[in-house]
Amino acid sequence: MSIEDLKAKVAREFGTPAVVVDLDVVERNIARVQGLCDAAGVANRPHIKTHKSPVIASMQRDGGARGITCQKIGEAEVMAEAGHDDILVAYNILGEEKLGRLGSLLSRARVTVAADNPTVVAGLPEAAAIAGRELPVVVECDTGRKRAGVETVAEAVALAKDIASRPGLSFAGFMLYPPENAMAETQAFLDAASAGVRELGLEPQIVSSGGTPNLLSLGKIEGVTEHRAGTSVFNDRMMLAAGVAQLQDCALTVYATVVSRAGPERGILDSGSKTLTSDTGGLEGHGLILEHPQAKIARFAEEHGFLDLSACNDRPNIGDVVRIIPNHVCVVVNMVDRLVAVRGHDIIGELPVAARGRLA
Amino acid sequence: MSIEDLKAKVAREFGTPAVVVDLDVVERNIARVQGLCDAAGVANRPHIKTHKSPVIASMQRDGGARGITCQKIGEAEVMAEAGHDDILVAYNILGEEKLGRLGSLLSRARVTVAADNPTVVAGLPEAAAIAGRELPVVVECDTGRKRAGVETVAEAVALAKDIASRPGLSFAGFMLYPPENAMAETQAFLDAASAGVRELGLEPQIVSSGGTPNLLSLGKIEGVTEHRAGTSVFNDRMMLAAGVAQLQDCALTVYATVVSRAGPERGILDSGSKTLTSDTGGLEGHGLILEHPQAKIARFAEEHGFLDLSACNDRPNIGDVVRIIPNHVCVVVNMVDRLVAVRGHDIIGELPVAARGRLA
Repeated sequence: MSIEDLKAKVAREFGTPAVVVDLDVVERNIARVQGLCDAAGVANRPHIKTHKSPVIASMQRDGGARGITCQKIGEAEVMAEAGHDDILVAYNILGEEKLGRLGSLLSRARVTVAADNPTVVAGLPEAAAIAGRELPVVVECDTGRKRAGVETVAEAVALAKDIASRPGLSFAGFMLYPPENAMAETQAFLDAASAGVRELGLEPQIVSSGGTPNLLSLGKIEGVTEHRAGTSVFNDRMMLAAGVAQLQDCALTVYATVVSRAGPERGILDSGSKTLTSDTGGLEGHGLILEHPQAKIARFAEEHGFLDLSACNDRPNIGDVVRIIPNHVCVVVNMVDRLVAVRGHDIIGELPVAARGRLA
Repeated sequence: MSIEDLKAKVAREFGTPAVVVDLDVVERNIARVQGLCDAAGVANRPHIKTHKSPVIASMQRDGGARGITCQKIGEAEVMAEAGHDDILVAYNILGEEKLGRLGSLLSRARVTVAADNPTVVAGLPEAAAIAGRELPVVVECDTGRKRAGVETVAEAVALAKDIASRPGLSFAGFMLYPPENAMAETQAFLDAASAGVRELGLEPQIVSSGGTPNLLSLGKIEGVTEHRAGTSVFNDRMMLAAGVAQLQDCALTVYATVVSRAGPERGILDSGSKTLTSDTGGLEGHGLILEHPQAKIARFAEEHGFLDLSACNDRPNIGDVVRIIPNHVCVVVNMVDRLVAVRGHDIIGELPVAARGRLA
């Protein structure tokens, strides 16, 4: 089958928009990430928020991953249900409802959680008590991104001490998401925090770093024991722009139909913000159309993507099916209940996005 | 129960983030829109893309709506299944898969579709043939928004003629989405297009206008027979900014928990781009926090909302549950499988977002 045959078949069998993933490319990406981790002597703990699929998580495990990373209890529940039993929930868990679920999860899987403040730490013993099992906790540290995480070494050490003092909790180490341009600062933070906890008789057994772009600098931060990368399993236009993936590494494309032309320099796709999402990832335009790379997906309505074709010599016709590499793949997967799985130009079946919609 | 009791109960029973809709407010909004339509002598055909709920569509019908508007065949299928049988699919439908489904839908419900180009019109007789029933088609006209729709009167008239000439199709009229600042231009377009089709012996029995802000100018465009408003059923921060809704008209809020503070002027919510979406609706910040209106939801990670609290005197604490009016409510509903339904401060139950995920 040719790519044109595949496009026609996907449109005929599933309709467009369809979110299509090539498992051959996925396997190559998984092997590549595992190879980078192995070469750096760092365990691989991929973040499943990108694919939300226990099947793909199993492919990652079978490829050599030590365990998985989840962002939400709901994601971890779906993964544990499917047999994944070494899970880092990289999130501040708090509130009665979530602590109850965390306790239940901990009773049936090995779970580690992250915390960046004493309020969260104070709640976690409840989950450990429910499970009747120790809950390891890593201290999330912010070394420059201004996202979650303690911002000072003193806070990191104090939180480690707090964790170690709580019934049912153990201090497990540190979780980082190093800015790509702040490796030295991250190293300094980690060294000082590690020295600080060792003075208290604590050992950071886990030092977890994260991010797909950081795969290229794996091993540069001494002391890192494992890495969490999400996007690398599929890649996207952000990763192309960052130079960490090539076109042939992009496993996921959105198949869309041109439903209107509305003028010589305009076109309209049947994919808008409810499919490709308004997350630009900081890029101009909303995706790369493989068949018309000079076309710009300029703006969205909910179910329409509006094309600026002024830079295109070869312009699409109404009825054409095109393939789009989205700017940010993680949020696109999150829009659908199922992915269409292909290998090369053959349809293999459908892959449920089993952990989609598990917001809490 | 107080609002604080309700917040605690929602967090305890459903976890956060939770998308909560107050059916008392929904009922008031439905009655208000119906009243505006009645006063203008225009039929009400609400767009269900906002709520995707057959239950709320029934509330709109029972409130006096003539029928409903859907954007996707998948939405219309869900609504028809629930007994809604007067449906405008306001979209260019094309491709074998969708035409087959449209034919099947037409055999069991009254369906009208929109078209803005001859390629789409050429395909529609297939659906009519499958149903063995005439398919009414409205010509979508663009009077300035540069979205979908023919851009000239000549194209509108030619497309009407094309429709009327096809087996199984009937020309039903025009569909507009008038820019709020182009009422005169829209009137001129409509008058000329209507005169043009009448010269051909065709009558625009339906002239459909759209948009929640345009509810305030209903009746100003002569010849309009029905109106499609979506957002008005819930309202959102865009509608507040546009002056077409007040705080008490906002039926939907996202309940979120503060999971970290990360510094005196920062805070982190457990709701990011996978809940509130990156759709800004053209506004600064990503939502209005009712408890802390001076807090700015400055940016997102997928599962984190990062707060700028520098303008706040009263700053939230970790563990606080807050209510957020999202910038654009239609895309937020689309992220969840269920809404938590309340009336005032009482939880009523859950409302499935039955047509969510029906991208095609």
